[in-house]
Amino acid sequence: MQAVELIRKKRDGEALSTSEINWLVEQYTRGLVPDYQISAWLMAVYWRGMDAREIGDLTLAMARSGEELHVRETISPVVDKHSTGGVGDKVTLAVAPLVAACGVAVGKMTGRGLGHTGGTVDKLESIPGFRAELSRAEFLQILTKYNIVLAGQSSELAPADGKFYALRDVTGTVESIPLIAASIMSKKLAVGGSHLLLDVKFGSGAFMKTLEQARELARTMVEIGRAADMHTVAAITSMQQPLGRAVGNALELAEAIAILRGEGPEDVAELCYHEAAELLLMTGKAASADEAAQIVAHAVRVGSGVEKLAQVIAAQGGDPRYVEQPRLLPSAPVRTLLTAPRSGYIAGIDAERIGLASMALGAGRFKKGEKIDPRTGLVLQAKVGTYLHVGDPLIEVHARNDAEVAALQDALYACYMWSDTATHVDMMIYDTIRP
Amino acid sequence: MQAVELIRKKRDGEALSTSEINWLVEQYTRGLVPDYQISAWLMAVYWRGMDAREIGDLTLAMARSGEELHVRETISPVVDKHSTGGVGDKVTLAVAPLVAACGVAVGKMTGRGLGHTGGTVDKLESIPGFRAELSRAEFLQILTKYNIVLAGQSSELAPADGKFYALRDVTGTVESIPLIAASIMSKKLAVGGSHLLLDVKFGSGAFMKTLEQARELARTMVEIGRAADMHTVAAITSMQQPLGRAVGNALELAEAIAILRGEGPEDVAELCYHEAAELLLMTGKAASADEAAQIVAHAVRVGSGVEKLAQVIAAQGGDPRYVEQPRLLPSAPVRTLLTAPRSGYIAGIDAERIGLASMALGAGRFKKGEKIDPRTGLVLQAKVGTYLHVGDPLIEVHARNDAEVAALQDALYACYMWSDTATHVDMMIYDTIRP
Repeated sequence: MQAVELIRKKRDGEALSTSEINWLVEQYTRGLVPDYQISAWLMAVYWRGMDAREIGDLTLAMARSGEELHVRETISPVVDKHSTGGVGDKVTLAVAPLVAACGVAVGKMTGRGLGHTGGTVDKLESIPGFRAELSRAEFLQILTKYNIVLAGQSSELAPADGKFYALRDVTGTVESIPLIAASIMSKKLAVGGSHLLLDVKFGSGAFMKTLEQARELARTMVEIGRAADMHTVAAITSMQQPLGRAVGNALELAEAIAILRGEGPEDVAELCYHEAAELLLMTGKAASADEAAQIVAHAVRVGSGVEKLAQVIAAQGGDPRYVEQPRLLPSAPVRTLLTAPRSGYIAGIDAERIGLASMALGAGRFKKGEKIDPRTGLVLQAKVGTYLHVGDPLIEVHARNDAEVAALQDALYACYMWSDTATHVDMMIYDTIRP
Repeated sequence: MQAVELIRKKRDGEALSTSEINWLVEQYTRGLVPDYQISAWLMAVYWRGMDAREIGDLTLAMARSGEELHVRETISPVVDKHSTGGVGDKVTLAVAPLVAACGVAVGKMTGRGLGHTGGTVDKLESIPGFRAELSRAEFLQILTKYNIVLAGQSSELAPADGKFYALRDVTGTVESIPLIAASIMSKKLAVGGSHLLLDVKFGSGAFMKTLEQARELARTMVEIGRAADMHTVAAITSMQQPLGRAVGNALELAEAIAILRGEGPEDVAELCYHEAAELLLMTGKAASADEAAQIVAHAVRVGSGVEKLAQVIAAQGGDPRYVEQPRLLPSAPVRTLLTAPRSGYIAGIDAERIGLASMALGAGRFKKGEKIDPRTGLVLQAKVGTYLHVGDPLIEVHARNDAEVAALQDALYACYMWSDTATHVDMMIYDTIRP
């Protein structure tokens, strides 16, 4: 087989065979096909797309390129959950312990965040001692014992995906739905859960800018799951404004704990309870949506989700007192409240720009490998649809120093759109795609 | 400027600015933008195309990437000639001396052939002592003294094009009209003649398979010439069957000498005389097409073209007796005549397959840098439209040994299509594109 032939084939709009895709992924992972051929192929894929069979083949080939955990062989059902990411997205931190507390095992491996804030493990690392890097044996042991594990993604997991992703990043081939879907799902298949809930976000603060793109990505991933025998459901959710109130690492962890206690902001709490219930329904733990919602509500009422979060943090070396008393979490030396510059209804909060401001405060990474400051971030004091009088609390800045606050002030005000009349509040869950 | 931004811009169908194209070509030539970004960009160009201004900018940027000869500053008018290449294409070998003999300077630099047979300099190197590699000073000196020079292409000429071409070759991005046009024209602009005649071939034995593709390539190159102030005309000619009778290096040189003497096969001789006349007309040496044709016919009659070819060969270190007595040219140890396997009209001769057979005999290169055997090749005994009786001479094989002839016999017979009724003979010159 010759790489140039496979490039030409895709360039001319033809589908590659299973063995051709396997060959390409294997040879590239082993360094036997050079970057410059893969990048031309990726651009041809960006242009011509891939059919469902090709996308499935690419996903499987990447999933098999390194270590595979086969967690469902250890415990089943075992669920996984993935969000395409947004600003203030702490949903996994609440949903995973909630579901585990309801008796369904959750085995999750997540990449570190790149962008607005850290990823799930970055947020958990706000807690001193917490260890995200686990061996395969530790991962399975903690999962079996506590019904939950929240680990950082091993570099041995789907290494082909890592190589492809790094190349896409510098060759203008990131924004391809087949490639995005295969990238996400390859890591899920390598972990090997039995059920997977996807949260595909769209809107200004999300990677998918439109509902239609989000639907297409969701359908593509649900189909990959179906073909690979992983029961996959995707919720299409809004990311028009930041999710909840907190944006930052320790700040979001604290908000997730509040959600587990039934004290979180309404929008994000609703989403977390919905996703937890969906997972109970998917795995047969509940017979109906109503029953699932009741089980979740009960867990929140009795605090079993908080307890589960404390357990998993302790199991991974962290101090569980931080869950019981979130005020212990590291906090920024400077807290400055910005107030409403005018009276009116908040008509919009630009999630992407809020995310960029949070990065500027040290809560996110501009580059891979950068250190994150767990203490910094933003707390929205009011969300879209709220009427504020001039001088009312608008947003609280958690910063390392006053200069950083001063430098960001204008950019933060510019995140807000105002209206003199009552404004529409976007709904949270737009659609659910099932196999 | 960031390469990934320029990739995205082209990917999204936008035109790059002049400074963006200059930056990309310069950075790539200096090794500061890696192959993997350029190959993604090339695939985006393959997909989205380029507008005339972009193509002109790319051509100029590549032309300026290395040494520039500015030949028109030494002698003017000075013509250049380029054929997109075909099987049995010895036209340059006849046209260049013919035009020079008629008083118009010809300064030509040609790449070595890759494919069916060698290029013009490979064919000239059939003559012992002939030196194709000339310094810039030698090039200009011989041109000034003899009105003609036929040199191999310096590696200092448009090095960016060399780099782009090598990458296109392995990334499925060769067959892009903007990229082909820019590649050809960058070398012509770097030489810097005042007038350029292009022979754009189409058909089974040519790179452009259809008349429409050939027209588009021709129009694109004529437009590049116009924008760069090089008077450029393109003839669109047929390559449905091999050109003339000889395919091979010394064999084609001998046929070119015959054409200069008025003794060549009708099809290729007609084309050579037409192109020579076109160049006289373009440069104002003749006031009309009729006058141009008369001047050329006179040069053939008195043999001044043969004399001019002998002169330039001598000037470049070759033995001119080989021009006066072509039977001295190196010849293959085995000559085998294949005869018609049936009676009938020849309805078609597959030029591409004839070319491949000639390569297999050692007359062409499979890979860059391979040595060519000047002696080997094929001589067609009859062309399309001829009626043959079974057993009549069909094709003569000039080979290194009998085994090679035996191995090729079936493939050679398979090049022929037969008909029981008289068949249409394709015309030679389909169109001429002028600025």
